[in-house]
Amino acid sequence: MPIITLTTDLGLKDFNVSSIKGAIYKNQPDATIVDISHDVPKFNIMQAAFILRNAYRHFPKNSIHIIGVLPDEAEDKPHIAIYHQEQYFIGADNGVFSLLFDETPEKIIELNISSALEDDFVRPTRDVFVKAACHIARGGTLEVLGKNVSSINERSIFRAVTNETSIRGTVIYIDNFGNAVTNITELLFKEVRRGRPFTISFRVPGYDIHEISSRYNDVPTSERLALFGSSDFLEIAINIGNASELLGLNINDIVTVSFHK
Amino acid sequence: MPIITLTTDLGLKDFNVSSIKGAIYKNQPDATIVDISHDVPKFNIMQAAFILRNAYRHFPKNSIHIIGVLPDEAEDKPHIAIYHQEQYFIGADNGVFSLLFDETPEKIIELNISSALEDDFVRPTRDVFVKAACHIARGGTLEVLGKNVSSINERSIFRAVTNETSIRGTVIYIDNFGNAVTNITELLFKEVRRGRPFTISFRVPGYDIHEISSRYNDVPTSERLALFGSSDFLEIAINIGNASELLGLNINDIVTVSFHK
Amino acid sequence: MPIITLTTDLGLKDFNVSSIKGAIYKNQPDATIVDISHDVPKFNIMQAAFILRNAYRHFPKNSIHIIGVLPDEAEDKPHIAIYHQEQYFIGADNGVFSLLFDETPEKIIELNISSALEDDFVRPTRDVFVKAACHIARGGTLEVLGKNVSSINERSIFRAVTNETSIRGTVIYIDNFGNAVTNITELLFKEVRRGRPFTISFRVPGYDIHEISSRYNDVPTSERLALFGSSDFLEIAINIGNASELLGLNINDIVTVSFHK
Repeated sequence: MPIITLTTDLGLKDFNVSSIKGAIYKNQPDATIVDISHDVPKFNIMQAAFILRNAYRHFPKNSIHIIGVLPDEAEDKPHIAIYHQEQYFIGADNGVFSLLFDETPEKIIELNISSALEDDFVRPTRDVFVKAACHIARGGTLEVLGKNVSSINERSIFRAVTNETSIRGTVIYIDNFGNAVTNITELLFKEVRRGRPFTISFRVPGYDIHEISSRYNDVPTSERLALFGSSDFLEIAINIGNASELLGLNINDIVTVSFHK
Repeated sequence: MPIITLTTDLGLKDFNVSSIKGAIYKNQPDATIVDISHDVPKFNIMQAAFILRNAYRHFPKNSIHIIGVLPDEAEDKPHIAIYHQEQYFIGADNGVFSLLFDETPEKIIELNISSALEDDFVRPTRDVFVKAACHIARGGTLEVLGKNVSSINERSIFRAVTNETSIRGTVIYIDNFGNAVTNITELLFKEVRRGRPFTISFRVPGYDIHEISSRYNDVPTSERLALFGSSDFLEIAINIGNASELLGLNINDIVTVSFHK
Repeated sequence: MPIITLTTDLGLKDFNVSSIKGAIYKNQPDATIVDISHDVPKFNIMQAAFILRNAYRHFPKNSIHIIGVLPDEAEDKPHIAIYHQEQYFIGADNGVFSLLFDETPEKIIELNISSALEDDFVRPTRDVFVKAACHIARGGTLEVLGKNVSSINERSIFRAVTNETSIRGTVIYIDNFGNAVTNITELLFKEVRRGRPFTISFRVPGYDIHEISSRYNDVPTSERLALFGSSDFLEIAINIGNASELLGLNINDIVTVSFHK
């Protein structure tokens, strides 16, 4: 029962997501389909990548992840399939994959499945990606799907900027609870910190944070905190409260960590 | 693993959709359930029909489609099961089926499953339609479920009106991307056009469109276009933009195609 | 194919729900996962209990229901698994279970699965509850998961108050159609009524209701009615209309039934 997941910006109201599922079952009746999210903000490959990168590592080996955000093929954005960390990923090489992985993927194949007249916001996913996914689900090899290539399109991610005494990051995601997730990873934080005390500051003066909590309720209800959450990125949160609304934190807001002697 | 799909206006927050799924698994443990949509506007059989008609053809043969919008039985709205184009459809004959198919369905059965005290917005679906669907899913025949009838309730659909030099259609659906889908099919368009040049006009003066695009990005970003999308109906769209919002297009708005010599 | 259901306040946009599903498939590849709801109002165990109590009885025997609302463990809120009415329930004993059942559950186990550093709004669900659910799904016994306890945390539910001549209830849920569901059960209503005529009144003067309908369309379109709906609680509704909006009915509003001689 191979698992095929879907990450799209198609929403759940229309017929598009269900037509993709119909197409999968037509090709591969015993597939298990899992929705990662269909509420990715429209055309937003950065948020699609963020959502999927935090979900895929919880899936079984050999799960197949279809990314249906900006799935159009273009000369500089070929359709590709990737094998990386014992999982498969299929989508248009529009930059989403460089945001999904921190390193070059182990195997990259440029798909030779024709999609000449198929380019719109759903057809490449439904017709091309599904065909590739079902081939893999049946145990087929990536090599049959196209030719090996050695790299993917890089997209300048807003990576956190560091120097000797600080990390300057940005908010890249607001989750359902209003937690503001930054692009500062726990690994980066530890590397730069080297045991020093620190101050985390953001747009609201007087609301600096001086420690990392290990759980939301380490602080009283309605109190602000910073922690490395289920995404492994630094997030600014409020215990049983909506940090985005209450602190006015939005996507692209700057979050600075200053380290002291 | 027979597929049973659900098209309802029940929403996903409440317990209704999951209670229907529980009832299916109770009857047929190895069913594969697919949500077509649960966000059909309330009581709107026209939108339910539009969504399902564009989804069902992507499903495997013998898929069973339950329509849970206005599922109440009445003397003039019996519960029926239909076999058409190698698929099954179950619902109340409230007019939704005449909007779902362009021709009389191949086989129509009036269900004899009692639902005397069962009429509200969810019980007929959960108790009657699920029972019929699971009977079919187990390989049972339609004839066991009731008596053959020869026709379904017709409902005057807002069909596009044509004459020698024009087609006058209406917007029948706004999708998740804000594309405005009309009731003008590609077939009708070709039949009336006969190769002539044309002008597509709608409520916003000065925004006429003179050609059919084959893909959204045939025009520059933020530019308007017309195409036959994944629904095979003429739609007015904006490349990487929301046509409904930006052009003020809404359900029931008139879209006219005028053909020139 | 054991069924595992999910009731959470995590929403469907983020990666949290799909990461829970990935974790289930990793533990138990042939599980059937059913979403009860992920749109429970945040941290609202009362609404979570209401939704699940109306859904679970439609599920097959031995279905396993995970409750992922306020899943944090605390000394006075241990993680527990329950067997009751031939079904399994797993969650934090934060009071949600006393709202879910009307009587003490048949079997209660305090889970001994460690979650020391795992407490936030998703990890206990994904790591602890999934582990317990998959153990049960594989046919494992509850006793292996921890020690028997004899009671659950009681939470003062807003139970309807009765005397000889009246029942005073409150609105506890507004469903997708705007029906206002009260905490007055059909059983309680019958017990107190003893065949007498009655008046149902609520915040809008002049809109009293004097009978119980058996279906929404017992009254004309747009007319108010009272009935025992699919939840078996008294609800105030409008036939093909939104009672909450049109009558201004909200959660916690008082609904009184007065019985006459």
